[in-house]
Formats: sequence, C-alpha cells, structure tokens
Amino acid sequence: MAENAFKSTSTDKLLFTPGPLATSRSVKAAMTRDLGSRDREFIEIVRAIRRNLLEIGEVPEATHTAIPMQGSGTFGLESVLSSTIPPDGKLLVLENGSYGKRLMKIAEVLGIEAVSNETEEADPANPDKLEEMLQEDAAITDVAIVHCETTTGILNPIKAIGKIAKRAGKRFIIDAMSSFGGISIGSELCGADYLVSSANKCIEGVPGFSFVICRKSALLETRERARSVCLDLHAQWTALEADGQFRFTPPVQSLLAFHQALLELLAEGGVKKRAERYAGNRAALSRGMRKLGFAEYLSPEVQSDIITTFLYPGDPRFNFDTLYNRLSDRGCVIYPGKLTQAGCFRIGTIGHITESDISFLLTSLEEVLREMHVALPVAPITEADTAD
Amino acid sequence: MAENAFKSTSTDKLLFTPGPLATSRSVKAAMTRDLGSRDREFIEIVRAIRRNLLEIGEVPEATHTAIPMQGSGTFGLESVLSSTIPPDGKLLVLENGSYGKRLMKIAEVLGIEAVSNETEEADPANPDKLEEMLQEDAAITDVAIVHCETTTGILNPIKAIGKIAKRAGKRFIIDAMSSFGGISIGSELCGADYLVSSANKCIEGVPGFSFVICRKSALLETRERARSVCLDLHAQWTALEADGQFRFTPPVQSLLAFHQALLELLAEGGVKKRAERYAGNRAALSRGMRKLGFAEYLSPEVQSDIITTFLYPGDPRFNFDTLYNRLSDRGCVIYPGKLTQAGCFRIGTIGHITESDISFLLTSLEEVLREMHVALPVAPITEADTAD
Repeated sequence: MAENAFKSTSTDKLLFTPGPLATSRSVKAAMTRDLGSRDREFIEIVRAIRRNLLEIGEVPEATHTAIPMQGSGTFGLESVLSSTIPPDGKLLVLENGSYGKRLMKIAEVLGIEAVSNETEEADPANPDKLEEMLQEDAAITDVAIVHCETTTGILNPIKAIGKIAKRAGKRFIIDAMSSFGGISIGSELCGADYLVSSANKCIEGVPGFSFVICRKSALLETRERARSVCLDLHAQWTALEADGQFRFTPPVQSLLAFHQALLELLAEGGVKKRAERYAGNRAALSRGMRKLGFAEYLSPEVQSDIITTFLYPGDPRFNFDTLYNRLSDRGCVIYPGKLTQAGCFRIGTIGHITESDISFLLTSLEEVLREMHVALPVAPITEADTAD
Repeated sequence: MAENAFKSTSTDKLLFTPGPLATSRSVKAAMTRDLGSRDREFIEIVRAIRRNLLEIGEVPEATHTAIPMQGSGTFGLESVLSSTIPPDGKLLVLENGSYGKRLMKIAEVLGIEAVSNETEEADPANPDKLEEMLQEDAAITDVAIVHCETTTGILNPIKAIGKIAKRAGKRFIIDAMSSFGGISIGSELCGADYLVSSANKCIEGVPGFSFVICRKSALLETRERARSVCLDLHAQWTALEADGQFRFTPPVQSLLAFHQALLELLAEGGVKKRAERYAGNRAALSRGMRKLGFAEYLSPEVQSDIITTFLYPGDPRFNFDTLYNRLSDRGCVIYPGKLTQAGCFRIGTIGHITESDISFLLTSLEEVLREMHVALPVAPITEADTAD
C-alpha cells in the first residue's frame, strides 16, 4: 500500500463496503476521551455538528434543522416515519431494492397505510408513474425514496421525484443514507421535508447514530405524533433546542468522531471534492475490474460512485466465500451481493480510501483469482452455466 | 491527582455522574480501529460480549441470552416493553423516581395498559403493596421496577419484588441500568424475565448501546409482537443467533470498547470486587461530605453505592451552578439534582475512579466552597431559609 494522506491505521483492514467504512486516524483518535454528555464542551460540539450538517446540506438555519438520533440509519428512518406521518396519513414508497422494502416494512409494523411503486432493481424510480399514482390516489400524504439504493448502487432521480411530490403538495422523505456528504443533494434538498443519513457513511465517521435534516415548518406540525418515546423526532429536537442536551444518553465518542469527520470533510473541500475523490475511486475500480473481465450489473447512466455490483463470473472455480475470505486475509473487505435474481458481489468506493487503495484491492483480487485457478479474464455467466 | 492504576487520560475530566463515566485508557484505545460489522473478528467479539454478559449476570446460556440493542439505555427499555408485552397485557410499574415514570411514559405512548404504585422518592418499593395489587387486579401480566433509581440513588428490593411477581405468575422486568455489573443482581436475576442495562454504566464502557438479558422461554413467546422494527428484541436476537450479525449497523467502536471493559471487569475480580471498589468510593465520599457539613437525602439502609443525593446547604452564598462550573474547571464533573421537592445535587461513585479521585473531588469542592464564601461546615436548609 503506497503511503498517502488518507491512510488509515496500518493494521486495519481496508473496508470496501457501504459502511461502516475506513475512517481517518484523526477521526478515530477523537474518540479517546471521557466527556460528560451534559458537559458544556460536548454541548458546543453537538451544536457545531448540527450547524455543519446544514452547511453540507446547503440549507439555511432559518428554514432547516439537523437532528441526530441514537442508533443506526434505520433508527433515523423509523423515527421519521413514526414521528411525522399522521394517523390518517398514507405513504407512497418508490422502491427498487431492499432499503425501499425496509421503508415499507417499517410502515407496516407501525400501522401506517402505505403503497409502493416497485421498479426493477436495475431501473431508477419512475417520475411519470409517481405523477400518475398521486393523481389517482388523493389519500397519499407522504412520498419516500432511497437516493442511492445500495442493494445495487443505483441512483434514483430525487430531483424529478421531489418536484412532482412538492407540486402535488405531498411531504417528501429522502433516505440519503449512503449518499449524503458524498453526492450533492441539490438545491433545497430537492424539496425534502426530511432527509435521513448516518454517521458512518460519506461523512466518514463511526457508527452510533443517524441524523435527520428537517424542514422546520414540517417538523413543527408533528408534536406528540410519534409512535415511540425514543424515536420521537420532535421531542429530540425540542430537547436539543432547549439546552443543547440529548433527552437520552448520546453516543458521546461517536459524536466526537463525527465532529472531527465533518471538519475533515470541509477541509477536503466539501461535498464537491469528496464526490470527485469517490468518482476517482470508482473509475479506477471500474477500469480494473473490466480488465479482469467482470461485468457490472447496472448501466453507467444510473450507477453511483458509492458502491458497484459485479456479476459472478461463469467459471465454476469461482466461489465468493473463498474470494471474500482470502481478500479479507490480505486486508481488503468487500461486500456480498443482494440481488434477488443474479449471483453478484459488491465493492464500495466510499470512506477514507483513495485510488492507491483501489489499486491494492485490484492487485489482491487478481492474486486470489489466480490462486483459485479462475481463468482470466473471467467470462460472464451464460444460460448454460446456470442451467442446473 | 495521585497516580493509580485506574487513572484515565490525564487531560480528561473525572466524571462523578451516573454515566457516561470515566473509562480506562485501554477501553478507549480499543475504539481506535476500523472493523467491518460483518467481519469474522467482529462477530466473534459480539459473541464473547454476549457470553460475558451472562457470566456477569450469573445465568447459564441454556436458559438465558444477552441481546445488545443500538441506542441508549432507554432504547433497551422501550425495546422490552414494545417487544414483549402482548396487546392485551397490562403493566404494573413500581415507581419512586423519574426512571419509573419513564417506564410509564413508554407504556402510554406505545398504547400499553399500565398502572403504577408510587412510593415517595426516599422510600423503596413496597412488596406488600405489590402483593395486594396483584391480588386485586388479575389483568396485570407484567411487573417492572428500577433497581437503582438514580433520581435519588435508592436501591429497590428486587429480590422480594421478584419473588412476589413470579409466585403470582407474572413476567418480571428489571431496569438495572445503573446497577448491573456494579451490584450483584442475585440468583437467577431475581426471577427477571428481562433485565436491561447499558454499555456506559458499571461495566465502564462508552455509550452507544444497551443490552437485555432475557429468559429464553419468555423471549420465545414474543415473535412479531414488537411495535417497532428497530426495537424488535426477538428479531434482534434471531439475527444474532443466525449468523452472529446485527440486523442494522451496530456501534462497532462502542462494542469494541465494551468487549475490553468486560475483560477488565472480569480481571478486576468480577462484580464482587467492583462492588467493593464502588463501596470504598462511596464511603470516602460520604465521610468527606459529612465533614463539610452536607446532609444526604436518603437514609443509609436504602442508599446504593452508585450515586448519592446531597441536600443544598442553607447558606444563601451557595449556588449550584457556580459550584458545578468551578468544579468542572478543576476537572471534576458532578451532577445536578432531580428531586421534585428539595434542592439537591448528586455525586456518582461509579466508573473508572478510586478513592484517590474522591479525595481530589473533596479537596476541590472545599476550595470552591471557600471561594464562594460559603460558611464551613455548611448547615442544612431550615424552614426559615425556604420561607420565601
């Protein structure tokens, strides 16, 4: 591994996953403190985090607010659905992967009426279909979509979707879990009333909490609407606004790491520069994988720079578990696939990694394939291969 | 501050609070790693954590299981109430402080029928009253109690309460947030079906998750009962049992710290030795504070070694905010009071601290009181002081 400014702790494995990701030494070092959750310094750090999230989201404090929520990204999503959709509300989810399905599952368990429009995993959400559904069903109050569906790595057209949802007077929720900080969301968060992301994605912090960027005018209508005490977004906001303190013990060290990660994101040049680094990572990966013969599942127009799905090669000597374990032994962690139809695996290109790390991964991958006696370049699976 | 084996990072403040607490250097150092949440090593660490929690709770794997839950302690409590009480269940909460009230609040928001028996904040829960209430109201299915109510520092008689609850055939839930690991819970968890505690209390880890120790036979009945996706205890358990992985991203670094903290608890000599250290801390605090003239709110028979409530002195030159800030500037963080009736503050005696740290706190406290020109020894508030 060549030396570079972004190198993690040398004994750590490089994580080519959708998160938790590789983080910088200084982000990890920021955790090695004891700090009371009601300490003035901590309160100031939380305030700075909330301000910096708005800056990264390019929305002003006058109209928007950022609320951290304990737990993983899904906790943030459940807190939004639980806290903001009224009892007589109806949610429409635009769905093309397992994270869209998860939104539907949350609605179901919370007893929120919901419908979905499902497109194929390789196809982005369809704005025309949304328009049609909103015209046909006036009961729909909320529209939700996953920005980058990491099931495949596909990018959904949140700008077009947001425009239609807002024109129809619906609330709009974006699951920007794996995109926020790494892809510009665009002007006024594409009209989102609630955008959810997580500490351990493109901001490059460690896991422990998610956060919601809310349009205040929407949030203000949701007092005591939550179907949970812990996941009550309005109550969480009220407490943080009152004295800067969390209602319930926050993950102090994760927040310290996140504060440092935000400063490093801004120092890198903000979302624009980070997106360029991720694009460089993915371009390097794509070139190298093509050379090895691997085919990408998505067409380039809808492929994000976050994570890429590669189809299994046809060679029967290829075995994903062997590949995964041997790469892991070499210090590179990749990710299993999640397609419902095709055998595949995924490689993430976000986190504290650069093109030199991608080169190291590609070299290691080629070595492992040779060890496995897989013929190179690999050939895609054919009908004949899958006939059994 | 005298050197001792338990010293935290020297620039950190000492936390005399109910948590987050002072933690050891090695616990904090354990966090400075990147580790994938699906990594084999991480899965092994989570398995070890779950095993060690049962060892500390003195219950066998054959009958019990430990389930970590993302978020603070309250998330663990809500997950138990949300996931285990059936739709036609009725909860009885024995309540003598704000954490008992919080259990009632969770039940209310989740739409779970609940009654409480409230005793005065200075009085422990009353087993006779429980027996009476269970006889009078056959609809009650679940009994819940806070072991150490940190509102005051009082210890509730969980053994007697558990005996009555179990004899009556009720499920029994213990909120052992601030006691587990620092006070022996006793044989078979006093009959608890669910015991909830948190990473950043007497185990001396950092915040980020809570955990539930469950009687398996009770847990097995709760499939798909949860009123939440994230806080579904049965689903969390099923996933961890299946492949050792969390359903949703865990706070990896908090778990790494916790794993180290558990090893250090066992190395210290387990709960018995840790309880002795805490008892030593509290005895030193109590002696010193008495010398300074401060009165304790609770009578000694019901006072825990976890946290102690001291009444405000009568001297009008005493001001808690000034005391708090000046002690904080000297590196000692204490805790505000929470009594509904009397002016008071609290000092915790748990965490990675020893009697030498207590001495340092007492010396600092005396210095600050002298700076504030408070007459020493302080005299208690009299009726006349509070007449206005």
